[in-house]
Amino acid sequence: MFLRKAWYLAAWREEVTDRPFGRTVLGERLVFFRTRDGSPKAVADRCPHRAFPLSMGTVEGDHLRCGYHGLAFDGAGRCVEVPGQSTIPPGCAVRAFPVVERWQGLWVWMGPAEDADPASVPEIAWLDTPGWVTSRGKFDLRANYQRLVDNLLDFSHLQFVHERTIGTDAVAEIPSRTERRGTSLHVQRWIVDRPPPPLFARAGGFNGNVDRWMNCDCHAPANVILDIGCAVAGSGALDGDRRRGIEIRSIHLVTPETATSTHYFWGYARNFAREDAAMTELLANGARATFAEDVAILEAQERRLTSARGAPEVDINGDGAPIQARRILGALIAAETAGQRRDGAPERVS
Amino acid sequence: MFLRKAWYLAAWREEVTDRPFGRTVLGERLVFFRTRDGSPKAVADRCPHRAFPLSMGTVEGDHLRCGYHGLAFDGAGRCVEVPGQSTIPPGCAVRAFPVVERWQGLWVWMGPAEDADPASVPEIAWLDTPGWVTSRGKFDLRANYQRLVDNLLDFSHLQFVHERTIGTDAVAEIPSRTERRGTSLHVQRWIVDRPPPPLFARAGGFNGNVDRWMNCDCHAPANVILDIGCAVAGSGALDGDRRRGIEIRSIHLVTPETATSTHYFWGYARNFAREDAAMTELLANGARATFAEDVAILEAQERRLTSARGAPEVDINGDGAPIQARRILGALIAAETAGQRRDGAPERVS
Amino acid sequence: MFLRKAWYLAAWREEVTDRPFGRTVLGERLVFFRTRDGSPKAVADRCPHRAFPLSMGTVEGDHLRCGYHGLAFDGAGRCVEVPGQSTIPPGCAVRAFPVVERWQGLWVWMGPAEDADPASVPEIAWLDTPGWVTSRGKFDLRANYQRLVDNLLDFSHLQFVHERTIGTDAVAEIPSRTERRGTSLHVQRWIVDRPPPPLFARAGGFNGNVDRWMNCDCHAPANVILDIGCAVAGSGALDGDRRRGIEIRSIHLVTPETATSTHYFWGYARNFAREDAAMTELLANGARATFAEDVAILEAQERRLTSARGAPEVDINGDGAPIQARRILGALIAAETAGQRRDGAPERVS
Repeated sequence: MFLRKAWYLAAWREEVTDRPFGRTVLGERLVFFRTRDGSPKAVADRCPHRAFPLSMGTVEGDHLRCGYHGLAFDGAGRCVEVPGQSTIPPGCAVRAFPVVERWQGLWVWMGPAEDADPASVPEIAWLDTPGWVTSRGKFDLRANYQRLVDNLLDFSHLQFVHERTIGTDAVAEIPSRTERRGTSLHVQRWIVDRPPPPLFARAGGFNGNVDRWMNCDCHAPANVILDIGCAVAGSGALDGDRRRGIEIRSIHLVTPETATSTHYFWGYARNFAREDAAMTELLANGARATFAEDVAILEAQERRLTSARGAPEVDINGDGAPIQARRILGALIAAETAGQRRDGAPERVS
Repeated sequence: MFLRKAWYLAAWREEVTDRPFGRTVLGERLVFFRTRDGSPKAVADRCPHRAFPLSMGTVEGDHLRCGYHGLAFDGAGRCVEVPGQSTIPPGCAVRAFPVVERWQGLWVWMGPAEDADPASVPEIAWLDTPGWVTSRGKFDLRANYQRLVDNLLDFSHLQFVHERTIGTDAVAEIPSRTERRGTSLHVQRWIVDRPPPPLFARAGGFNGNVDRWMNCDCHAPANVILDIGCAVAGSGALDGDRRRGIEIRSIHLVTPETATSTHYFWGYARNFAREDAAMTELLANGARATFAEDVAILEAQERRLTSARGAPEVDINGDGAPIQARRILGALIAAETAGQRRDGAPERVS
Repeated sequence: MFLRKAWYLAAWREEVTDRPFGRTVLGERLVFFRTRDGSPKAVADRCPHRAFPLSMGTVEGDHLRCGYHGLAFDGAGRCVEVPGQSTIPPGCAVRAFPVVERWQGLWVWMGPAEDADPASVPEIAWLDTPGWVTSRGKFDLRANYQRLVDNLLDFSHLQFVHERTIGTDAVAEIPSRTERRGTSLHVQRWIVDRPPPPLFARAGGFNGNVDRWMNCDCHAPANVILDIGCAVAGSGALDGDRRRGIEIRSIHLVTPETATSTHYFWGYARNFAREDAAMTELLANGARATFAEDVAILEAQERRLTSARGAPEVDINGDGAPIQARRILGALIAAETAGQRRDGAPERVS
């Protein structure tokens, strides 16, 4: 089940150039393209004539042309040309999906177009803000998106999965504070006066212990922004003074592809050593390696779940935030589904 | 659904030599072999003992021997030997399928053997006629055979799919004339006084415009012969005088392998420059490249259809002939199925 | 359907070292590990927390630690640690399976643990007996285990499948004597005064005819020991004097992985030329090549069966022993299933 009335990051901006770009979101095959003025468009990736994928066609001016019989469509999904005839057959159109370019990416609205409000695209400012240097990338995760959200909201796996980068022995023992804010979740955790993890030790040049913060914001349906960093132990970070530390935004934009696969977009932003290319490379490599470890873990988990989905699971203390996030999203999906039923629209089974 | 009472091209003659040759036709696994006098035989590719594929066995004289326990069968499917015992167990036989060698190929009859009339093998003379030089080949198409018949009956895709060989800008705009002849369909199209397509320009050495004909015969279930060519514009081709032109038979023998895969046999015959090996190579390469473009298109289409088979399709003007062909074949299959029901035989679900 | 109350060979001893070792038996994913004293343990390969495969974790002392959130389990499947909390959640355990190390391998009991009697591990002494030199190996067979048992109980395929190693023309014609002993089957066959098969001719240096014996013991569910060999013709082997011959135990320990895949463990033991490394290599290579031929045959058979499982099969004389073995095993499974029903436990569908 997916929440449909939501903006999902569908592509980094540079992925969509002068050719049609096919991508599946919430199980729907979409094709993205740009009109002459660069505006991004998204329509269903299936010609209404004989089902040929429009992503294998061409962009001509403001139109997308099918690569089989040459039917052309505009960004609203209307057929504007059928070669060999002067009229357009009734019903010859593809569904268009609202799409907005923001924060270096293309965001698509998967609910009814009339409900799409570009102002409600989530604010992921650190992807595109002066004063911050950001690396970003994408993984194709062969697992349900909920596995990844669970993972991002649970810090206790760091010491078992990420010991080479951001894990330390201390993480699992230290409790966190979870707070709900509307349909978002805010989780805070401090690790005080302990050795820094390997990646931060190198990035910050710390010789001794640090005070380390891990603040997590999870916005439904599935975008997670981590405010992480550490400062010299006792230097005031606990009171908000981060001047003797390093500060990072670890950004995770999670878009379901199908029920068992996920587009995992990530960014890693910093506001220190901004001119230092070696630092950029260190952090980008560190982030990528860390998230790749998660991908491997989650895909193994998914394979095991696939063979017996629905078998009972035992919860532990560290599951507090993931369980709350599941509840928030579950309630949003249930409300959306109930609304569809009231409207007489069919319930979508995803 | 397949038409079973029909001859299908199962193999080019050189594919079946002195070893068993396995091939699936209409979803049935068959094994072809030749007896000592060269006669082709076809039986079910499954030993009745323990289901071992007979195509992994050997041919011994007039018999096919299983590669596991050595049971031997004759071309009528009768078991003639069980090693280690002197009697043949009752019911120890495989179904035999009538097979005829003609037009450089082996044709198999998939209906009841008693209905098989070798005289009804379709006449594809250009594959094997003095005065014509023919190249031929085969594609393994991972798509339903109906996609390919649709494609062959529709000329409008030429300018979008085959612009490097036989496509020109003009094709889609020019109307065609479709005529039904029994269970066959005849489609005619003239492109008058226009530039030749790239492949024909090279083959015919045309410097100026040509009159180009595209005549298509589609014989149910799924064999399509194109009479194509062009002549110097105004040189009389419209009135039947093709002497200042080039003439080709483009032959497409379409045999369903399964519901989603097809044996696509093709031939390309000419009656000009018959001693010119470079011409043979030019045309064979051009044909193969053109048909490979279709294969790529059709497989992409099939993948999209597979994810939502039965979704509505919009028809356009160019679909006239394909829709008629579907109707002819649909009626033949329906009649055959009704006949089976009347006979008390079970309906085949393919 | 599998017999669950049985010991199955799950791994050769050297496969399980200081890291968790995942293997599926009877469709159940298991993880094997050793405690500090070397004792083998086996538990379900799925963390009860979030289903992560424990085989991707680590062994720490006597415990198995999950590689995701660090839960630790002992060899009895009890959770002994949840990082970050002092109590173990109720129900946080994995099923443990009795496992015994014997005859160079780890044997697992797939029925209720309380029924497991280590004394009932099958006696495969030649794997681990002074006076015998044994090669062993394993194939991953993509076929139902019953196919392999059928194959091992039927000598008539030797001349068709194994003509390069142990097949001779004579095998299929010579009858065998089958005797049931409890839930085991004993099959005897003599080939008297005939040329030796290629492998035995080389191993024994025979110049003339031999008397060859092929004695087969099949122990339910699926372990087959062959006492095979040959001696100079007329030298007394028929009366039990094997001194002028060579003697081999060909050992086949067959463990179902899933309904369509099998762990095929094999051993090849001899009591002659024990110091001769070239002989060891000759026989190991010969055995491996022979069994690989069976694997290829059985996988082809399985693929054909998969497309129409349950289609009728015709029996031949050579099927006597395989059919008896199927009956013995079928009766054991039926009795076990009936017992489970009486106990109120659910029937297992495999």
